[in-house]
Amino acid sequence: MKRIAESTVRRLSIYLRFLEEFEVGGLSTVSSEELARRGGTTSAQVRKDLSFFGSFGKRGLGYSVPELSSALREILGLGREWRVVIIGAGKIGAALAQYRGFRQRGYNIIAVYDSSADKIGRSLEGIEIRDIRRFESDVAAERPEIAVIAIPGEGAQEVLDRIVRTGIKAVLNFAPVQLNAPADVTVKAVNMAMELEGLSFALTNRE
Amino acid sequence: MKRIAESTVRRLSIYLRFLEEFEVGGLSTVSSEELARRGGTTSAQVRKDLSFFGSFGKRGLGYSVPELSSALREILGLGREWRVVIIGAGKIGAALAQYRGFRQRGYNIIAVYDSSADKIGRSLEGIEIRDIRRFESDVAAERPEIAVIAIPGEGAQEVLDRIVRTGIKAVLNFAPVQLNAPADVTVKAVNMAMELEGLSFALTNRE
Repeated sequence: MKRIAESTVRRLSIYLRFLEEFEVGGLSTVSSEELARRGGTTSAQVRKDLSFFGSFGKRGLGYSVPELSSALREILGLGREWRVVIIGAGKIGAALAQYRGFRQRGYNIIAVYDSSADKIGRSLEGIEIRDIRRFESDVAAERPEIAVIAIPGEGAQEVLDRIVRTGIKAVLNFAPVQLNAPADVTVKAVNMAMELEGLSFALTNRE
Repeated sequence: MKRIAESTVRRLSIYLRFLEEFEVGGLSTVSSEELARRGGTTSAQVRKDLSFFGSFGKRGLGYSVPELSSALREILGLGREWRVVIIGAGKIGAALAQYRGFRQRGYNIIAVYDSSADKIGRSLEGIEIRDIRRFESDVAAERPEIAVIAIPGEGAQEVLDRIVRTGIKAVLNFAPVQLNAPADVTVKAVNMAMELEGLSFALTNRE
């Protein structure tokens, strides 16, 4: 398959959310125009995004809502459960552990790790906080697929290196630093300051 | 100015981070190839991204690190202080209030709002938790430019409507729902589940 841009994958996630609303509303078909309007893009972009993954919809009839949403769930890997570990039991780690949207989508947080003696052994929303020293042996036994880095910038690269050595191939990074990983490991970054920069850009560059 | 895509603005933020690293490292010039390599894109894309905002760099000489980083800070609206309010003093609100990266970039969180009697009056990292009933009169007096929605999905649209009525034009939404705003209000969404979908997509579609 062609390399798919991150922005395309993001739009697929957005289309899926609209399709799920349409399903709840009992709609059976939807046009690329409607998906485009809701997703803030063009119908040509919608058709192009979907064309990477096969042939969907019929000219003049639009897309079948249940078929397309089921295909998008498959494409996004939502047809199964994913085991997720969080490194860092601070405020961001705690916010993530309690986030109900994860479980609904099949992301099962199996453990939170920390190095602080007064956190280890406690529980976050029913999820055990474990000693980070157990990390490698736990991963070997439990085989989580996704790791979330929720610690400050200092130490984040070292934590990523440990994650990479266990064989985990997908990492979500909340530490506000750029991390280096081998090409076969996907690292996505959520950088709060960058999100705000998108807003101050919009405020600064208004007509 | 042409409408600039969100993905372009995001890359400008990334380039700025690399330029600041280069500044710390004492480098005076950088090529579009080097920026592209660090940002995971192509040098043509770097040149195109920067061309929206003027003429930077000299053929064969690359970009001046201090000039380009200063221009990017200006473009991203980082040459001034922005007043930010957070609505919701739960775990996400608390994580944001303590996030040191905001203050460093000129984002000054002036207040956190909540409706819960046992939170109001307390302080989060030195920031006062105020009664949400004061929101409209506070905004009229203090004129924050950016509002952050850090409450669950239920109620988020109502909170956005209140924000919009105060005249605030930039909103960062952490509630896991799609919100509707007038065209002159910029709403950016951070959806944790969508970030994980980018990872399960990558894991599912590996060669």
